[in-house]
Amino acid sequence: MTVDATYRVTGFLANGIHVGIKNDGRRDLALIYSTVPAKAAGVFTTNCFKAAPVQLDMARIRTGKAQAVIANSGCANAATGPEGLADARAVSLALSRELGIADDLVQVASTGIIGRRFDVGKIESGVKGLVEGLHEEGIPAAEEAIMTTDRFPKIALRKGLIGSREVTLCGIAKGAGMIEPHMATMLSFVMTDAAIEQDVLASLFRKAIGVSFNAISVDGCMSTNDTALMLANGAAGNKAIGKGGRERSRFAELLTGLLAELARAMVRDGEGATKCIEVTVDEAASVRDARRIADAVANSNLVKTAFFGGDPNWGRIISAAGSVGIDLPVERVRLFFENVLLFERGHGVPDREDQLAAIMGQSEIRIRLQLGMGKSRATVCFSDLTVDYVKLNAHYHT
Amino acid sequence: MTVDATYRVTGFLANGIHVGIKNDGRRDLALIYSTVPAKAAGVFTTNCFKAAPVQLDMARIRTGKAQAVIANSGCANAATGPEGLADARAVSLALSRELGIADDLVQVASTGIIGRRFDVGKIESGVKGLVEGLHEEGIPAAEEAIMTTDRFPKIALRKGLIGSREVTLCGIAKGAGMIEPHMATMLSFVMTDAAIEQDVLASLFRKAIGVSFNAISVDGCMSTNDTALMLANGAAGNKAIGKGGRERSRFAELLTGLLAELARAMVRDGEGATKCIEVTVDEAASVRDARRIADAVANSNLVKTAFFGGDPNWGRIISAAGSVGIDLPVERVRLFFENVLLFERGHGVPDREDQLAAIMGQSEIRIRLQLGMGKSRATVCFSDLTVDYVKLNAHYHT
Repeated sequence: MTVDATYRVTGFLANGIHVGIKNDGRRDLALIYSTVPAKAAGVFTTNCFKAAPVQLDMARIRTGKAQAVIANSGCANAATGPEGLADARAVSLALSRELGIADDLVQVASTGIIGRRFDVGKIESGVKGLVEGLHEEGIPAAEEAIMTTDRFPKIALRKGLIGSREVTLCGIAKGAGMIEPHMATMLSFVMTDAAIEQDVLASLFRKAIGVSFNAISVDGCMSTNDTALMLANGAAGNKAIGKGGRERSRFAELLTGLLAELARAMVRDGEGATKCIEVTVDEAASVRDARRIADAVANSNLVKTAFFGGDPNWGRIISAAGSVGIDLPVERVRLFFENVLLFERGHGVPDREDQLAAIMGQSEIRIRLQLGMGKSRATVCFSDLTVDYVKLNAHYHT
Repeated sequence: MTVDATYRVTGFLANGIHVGIKNDGRRDLALIYSTVPAKAAGVFTTNCFKAAPVQLDMARIRTGKAQAVIANSGCANAATGPEGLADARAVSLALSRELGIADDLVQVASTGIIGRRFDVGKIESGVKGLVEGLHEEGIPAAEEAIMTTDRFPKIALRKGLIGSREVTLCGIAKGAGMIEPHMATMLSFVMTDAAIEQDVLASLFRKAIGVSFNAISVDGCMSTNDTALMLANGAAGNKAIGKGGRERSRFAELLTGLLAELARAMVRDGEGATKCIEVTVDEAASVRDARRIADAVANSNLVKTAFFGGDPNWGRIISAAGSVGIDLPVERVRLFFENVLLFERGHGVPDREDQLAAIMGQSEIRIRLQLGMGKSRATVCFSDLTVDYVKLNAHYHT
């Protein structure tokens, strides 16, 4: 790992170490710590089978405050019953004691296999070293410690002026599998030194997630552990961002850009993925309709395998779009790959093979489906479905 | 091909030949012909982008009568606009002239790649030989001619007494990809010599499809061409089956068994499939809820790849069940693989590895999810997601 000093946020320390939850020696325990209690917001999975740490966090985040996030990889602590919840509480308690902070200022996250408990003793005895190693340049180490099947780390940074003060936002994320629209994401933690009112933070965070982590799909599966947390500690010294005004818009823009970058990185690093495809559905009657169709395309195994094969099988895209129960005006629907028109007036446009061959060779491809029904649009990014996805997921558990 | 004399239905002739739509010499044009006009019913894809033959059939089937079904493989004639519809009409016309029957008694079906027209001349000039070769033992040849990526033919037969007369039902089907709940199926044609009122036929056919072709999933994708047709020519001489009574129930039972056998064969022959998994969701508040959860499990790529790997990753099953937006009582939910309880009271049951290893080695596996919410249930059959599925579908078009 290269320690990159650019990933620093005033008033935040971080660390990532190996305590033995993963059995291959890689880092598996991450800590993010704000030197003062921070305004906090969280977005969590909507799955009924919420993992133990998610249950704990959802109850605690209602206060709108947090000071530390501890996350392990290698075990999801999901479907572990009351015992799993006790384990999550034990992790929190060990950490809050070591840090000397109130226990309910700790947020806990886990990622890895469902249905197994971790050895809580390993984490408890690792906490001392984890805290001792906290440092300003520890964010990349924390990122490494939340990775599972990720092939590369996902860290993004934004800086901007709020009033006369420079604020910094830095986010880390892990993704790879079980990633789909309509949920938070796998794990993502965002730190900022901006001062911001808690309700504004919560609302901007949720909104930015809607067009980033909630607009990507790797495999159409929703996790039990998805957690996105944001901590704002106010160390930048700006006048706190409130409900209106330019400063709020500017901050929203920085945050949306940051999350979009992380979300896009998750798709590029989708399990087994070789391509990142962006589908935009426009001229829809409503955003909801546009989104349903974009999701259908993004989650179609036939579409996803065709992109893997570099096969411009556009018929599968219109077939997916036509299957969601929205009565499309077939004669007005148009489909583009990049700027190349492939389908209009109910049939394919001939002699596009050469242009298509070039497009299908790209690692990032934009497709656009115009419905001819209205003025709404939605965009979803997705990865292809590959032989490696199947191989990775056929033997993950054993 | 082995001609099997058991696949005969009084008053029906069939044939299947190669005319060059497929370029590998395999049969690609099928014909089923009733010597008298038959009562007919059809169930078709609900996709907006209905293939040309589907559009033609849906208009014609309203009469409740048909005498011939001509089907080609190798080209779907979908997304082919007005030209494709003209092609389908030309095929019908060539056939009705050759047979000397009214054109609107012909049903047309196509399966294969979307977005390409076929060489209608090849079919027109093949029709003469197709009709000349019609014979009572031609059903297996017709089946071969509708296969695409299918690895084995799907033919099923049922015989039973209606009144004092023996009636026969014989069905053929092709499946393999783009198979999902909530649609008709790929292609299936059912012949019977039973006499039956047309509205009773239509209602029994639709109902039997609901628990057979509409309760299976290979890849969660809905085709533009799905067509299931049933012809009843009355040659058995039974008193026509009407709205009520034992005869209707008996016939419904035969038909449901026939379609269930064909549907199961489609799953076993799902593209790249190595396993057939049956998921039953019971103790649901409604059949609709049970079905939504069963579908979510059946269409989860993570569940499907785990079965391919023989990996008893039951966490993915409860995660899929929890993701559909139904508020499950987590503490009451129980999951079984065959008769082995794996999950209850919010967590996994320990020490099940040996029993699970044996179950995961089976080619047919039953799983059951008890919700503890009510008395409704639904069952869906699905295939695993394999390396071969991806390979098959990555290069289908090119």
